[in-house]
Amino acid sequence: MVLRRSQVAQMVESRWFSNTMLVVILINAAVLGWATYGGSAQPYLVVAERIVVGVFVVELALKLIAWRGGFFRDPWNWFDFFVVVISVIPATGPFSVLRILRVLRILRVITAVPQMRTIISALFRSMPGMGTVIGLLLVVVYTAAILGQQLFGDDVPQYFGDLGTTLYTLFTVMTTENWPDFADAVAEDHPLGWMFFVGYIVVTTFIVLNLVIGVIVTAMEQEVESGLWAEDQKLEAVQHEAVMAKLAELSEQVARLDRMVRDHGGDPDAGEPVGQGAGVAHDPVQPSNGSG
Amino acid sequence: MVLRRSQVAQMVESRWFSNTMLVVILINAAVLGWATYGGSAQPYLVVAERIVVGVFVVELALKLIAWRGGFFRDPWNWFDFFVVVISVIPATGPFSVLRILRVLRILRVITAVPQMRTIISALFRSMPGMGTVIGLLLVVVYTAAILGQQLFGDDVPQYFGDLGTTLYTLFTVMTTENWPDFADAVAEDHPLGWMFFVGYIVVTTFIVLNLVIGVIVTAMEQEVESGLWAEDQKLEAVQHEAVMAKLAELSEQVARLDRMVRDHGGDPDAGEPVGQGAGVAHDPVQPSNGSG
Amino acid sequence: MVLRRSQVAQMVESRWFSNTMLVVILINAAVLGWATYGGSAQPYLVVAERIVVGVFVVELALKLIAWRGGFFRDPWNWFDFFVVVISVIPATGPFSVLRILRVLRILRVITAVPQMRTIISALFRSMPGMGTVIGLLLVVVYTAAILGQQLFGDDVPQYFGDLGTTLYTLFTVMTTENWPDFADAVAEDHPLGWMFFVGYIVVTTFIVLNLVIGVIVTAMEQEVESGLWAEDQKLEAVQHEAVMAKLAELSEQVARLDRMVRDHGGDPDAGEPVGQGAGVAHDPVQPSNGSG
Amino acid sequence: MVLRRSQVAQMVESRWFSNTMLVVILINAAVLGWATYGGSAQPYLVVAERIVVGVFVVELALKLIAWRGGFFRDPWNWFDFFVVVISVIPATGPFSVLRILRVLRILRVITAVPQMRTIISALFRSMPGMGTVIGLLLVVVYTAAILGQQLFGDDVPQYFGDLGTTLYTLFTVMTTENWPDFADAVAEDHPLGWMFFVGYIVVTTFIVLNLVIGVIVTAMEQEVESGLWAEDQKLEAVQHEAVMAKLAELSEQVARLDRMVRDHGGDPDAGEPVGQGAGVAHDPVQPSNGSG
Repeated sequence: MVLRRSQVAQMVESRWFSNTMLVVILINAAVLGWATYGGSAQPYLVVAERIVVGVFVVELALKLIAWRGGFFRDPWNWFDFFVVVISVIPATGPFSVLRILRVLRILRVITAVPQMRTIISALFRSMPGMGTVIGLLLVVVYTAAILGQQLFGDDVPQYFGDLGTTLYTLFTVMTTENWPDFADAVAEDHPLGWMFFVGYIVVTTFIVLNLVIGVIVTAMEQEVESGLWAEDQKLEAVQHEAVMAKLAELSEQVARLDRMVRDHGGDPDAGEPVGQGAGVAHDPVQPSNGSG
Repeated sequence: MVLRRSQVAQMVESRWFSNTMLVVILINAAVLGWATYGGSAQPYLVVAERIVVGVFVVELALKLIAWRGGFFRDPWNWFDFFVVVISVIPATGPFSVLRILRVLRILRVITAVPQMRTIISALFRSMPGMGTVIGLLLVVVYTAAILGQQLFGDDVPQYFGDLGTTLYTLFTVMTTENWPDFADAVAEDHPLGWMFFVGYIVVTTFIVLNLVIGVIVTAMEQEVESGLWAEDQKLEAVQHEAVMAKLAELSEQVARLDRMVRDHGGDPDAGEPVGQGAGVAHDPVQPSNGSG
Repeated sequence: MVLRRSQVAQMVESRWFSNTMLVVILINAAVLGWATYGGSAQPYLVVAERIVVGVFVVELALKLIAWRGGFFRDPWNWFDFFVVVISVIPATGPFSVLRILRVLRILRVITAVPQMRTIISALFRSMPGMGTVIGLLLVVVYTAAILGQQLFGDDVPQYFGDLGTTLYTLFTVMTTENWPDFADAVAEDHPLGWMFFVGYIVVTTFIVLNLVIGVIVTAMEQEVESGLWAEDQKLEAVQHEAVMAKLAELSEQVARLDRMVRDHGGDPDAGEPVGQGAGVAHDPVQPSNGSG
Repeated sequence: MVLRRSQVAQMVESRWFSNTMLVVILINAAVLGWATYGGSAQPYLVVAERIVVGVFVVELALKLIAWRGGFFRDPWNWFDFFVVVISVIPATGPFSVLRILRVLRILRVITAVPQMRTIISALFRSMPGMGTVIGLLLVVVYTAAILGQQLFGDDVPQYFGDLGTTLYTLFTVMTTENWPDFADAVAEDHPLGWMFFVGYIVVTTFIVLNLVIGVIVTAMEQEVESGLWAEDQKLEAVQHEAVMAKLAELSEQVARLDRMVRDHGGDPDAGEPVGQGAGVAHDPVQPSNGSG
């Protein structure tokens, strides 16, 4: 039994298995796309879809058999699990909702391609770094919305009627789309209304610019730090150690030499070795030398 | 008295206090937002607003008690002070103005969140760096405005009537919004008018591009210089000192060795001392050596 | 014969030859441009075009004579070959197609200017790096298209009728062009339709931003790695070797010194040799020393 | 005379002089701006303008007196010279032209502010680096224009009538402005026309992106290379020399030591000298040693 399970694990983790699943996912995507054209192919597409879902269920079952509880350690598996469950629930409940959630199956491409998983993870990791700037952007936009609604709300309700409308308007302005229309509508009653728009565009553009720059700089630094930098630091350390080792060896040689010299023309008070802090007393050998 | 003041300071500087204030600020923002929808909730919102202002006043009072004059050393406090004062002034003067300045209270989020304060400071610091490029941009836009007004002012007054109108038109063109409309309006009387717009778009885009690049490069350099760079420099210095110390020790050893050798079996031509730290007295052995 | 071929090769590879061809290519481009104005010049332009094609054929022939099979090793030559062949085929087949493919001749500027070839190669090399992010972008857009078609397909067929239409609409939205029009059209039946557009714009912008950043970071790193970095690594290596060499020399000196000392005044406990390269025979001097 | 000239030079190069001129230039700009509003101030503005021009002439004269030929070594001075000459020529020729060239006087701000001169120079220097990519962009746009004119010229003459019109249309598309309108106009007769626009937008965006990245990377590298890099290289060199010097000293010490040892207690097999710089004559002491 254990053996069979290990075999399943082996198969599930094999290259061809994941590739096959990727193909199935892409077929499913194509089917969903084709289905948007309706026409006579519809019934066949429905069948195809059923088959795809069946394959997904089998895949899920195999993975559960292979990894058991381990399956749920990976959040990506949670996503796959959720998507498949959604697909098999009979569409008796609110139909449109389930039909719509089918599109999530296309996103399984991301879970099926490791590189994409990496990128998504990277995106989520880079989030906190941008958090403050995005927060600042939201504060500014919100403040501008309240301000705009109070200034123009009564005269231009279609754009500045309430908070929601104004936020939508300001989002549109942030994409620099149709903002002159809003500005003109406002200008009729507020000759200085242009200041609001110009100021808003300049400030938000400036913040967004800083957001982008921040991200680039952070990314660069991490890249450098983890990559070339560490490498260089290591190299320098290695070289440094090599030099220090060689020097230690040398001083060892010299110390030994000095020991020898002392022993051969031995002086009693040469107890302490040479190296640091070795003051040399007057030479006792001399007299014995005079003998003869 | 001093004690009670220190207690106040402790409280004012405590984590929970600032968090509470942040919550109050956010509530205030929500209230202002809700108020834009008018409706029956209005009176309650007015009450809520009064309460919020009250809290702000208390906070201000506590901080003034705690820090006294020190309170005004931080420009951010000036901002808070100004905002609160605005809020408590009875709205007898030009009403709309005061109602509008209420939105500044939302910006207190920035003073309440340290990270945001940091970013804002960073933005202001990065200003001078961009100053020249922005100045250049303004000069170019201003020149283009004068030029455009002189060229098209008479024929297309709605866009190039006077300096103000033209500047507004050119700002719109800079956001690449509706510029073909202006160009078409001009084209009727000026077949070569397109050159003005194309040239203007190319030049301003180019300057803005250089502005962005400049900011990125500067940011990167500061980042690197303050971070990895300094670190690396320090490391290299440490390693260097280690090597030099080891070398000094070695030469000390050798010098001593040489002193010993000379003392014990002196040679005639060893008049000059060896290296540093090798003070050698004249050799007494030599004569006795000649004996016999 | 070999000689004449080498002469041809020399000529074909000469500076003036490539420059001449560049001029011809530019003339051809000018002719094609002029031809768009039709008018009485048409017949002359046709002649000019014929001449240009003739020159291209001659160039091709010369290169084939000069390099023979080697000619087809460079993909750029394949492009040139294809372009010329297209030009000489009599336009009896579907005329418009051939007339249209004539424009490819303009792109010969790229094959004629080395720097441009370099850039194009760089672009293609940088492709794989961006591959995953672009893939992610496509997945997101495709999913959004399926979703949009299912949500709004029935009510706004002109924008979300089927997959193709929806993809085109979403591409337009990605250029932030006219998206409010789509949003308004949708808003009539779907009050929450704005969420789809805002979400789509935010997500795609975010992915594109990450794409750009990724490219910049990668480019920077390669630049640094290949350029300054390697240089620095080399310098450090050179310096390191110099130090190590010097140290080896020193230890060699010391070792020899020590050999000498032992030989001359042998000490009993000097059993172990000193440093490397200091093999010491038993001391012959000693006995003579004991004499007296 | 020489003295007075040196005085003039001193004045012309003084801080207050350039500042005064800057003020005059700004006044001139303000006057030109005010003039666009016409009205009763006109005559006074004309007078003000005359005065400004007068000041410029005086400035020019002083500089010519001070620097003589040297004045024309700086291209910026050429610009100032040209601008002033333009201003003094009686507007008898084509009037509008001269009135228009007056705006160039505003650009004198750039020549008056050193930082701006620096930036402009930097822009021009960075040009060649981008040259190839810009060239590539032009080739692509030109090719697309020829292609577009051939494909849609007959059916949509208002946008693709001839080369000029098409180039203008494609420039507009590149600013992603109104491109859907062009696409719709084309779509009537060319159901696949969207491919042309989508392809064009993608390709040009891609090239522009690479242009930006290229500029950033180059700028960064120069920045780093000239700044931190050189500094680091220098530091490393200094440290390296220190170590090598110390090592040389050491080996000198050892060499001397070895000379001494050989001299004093000579061993037969110590024929070869130790290290460099240790030339040792055969030992004279030895015989005397054997005595007794």
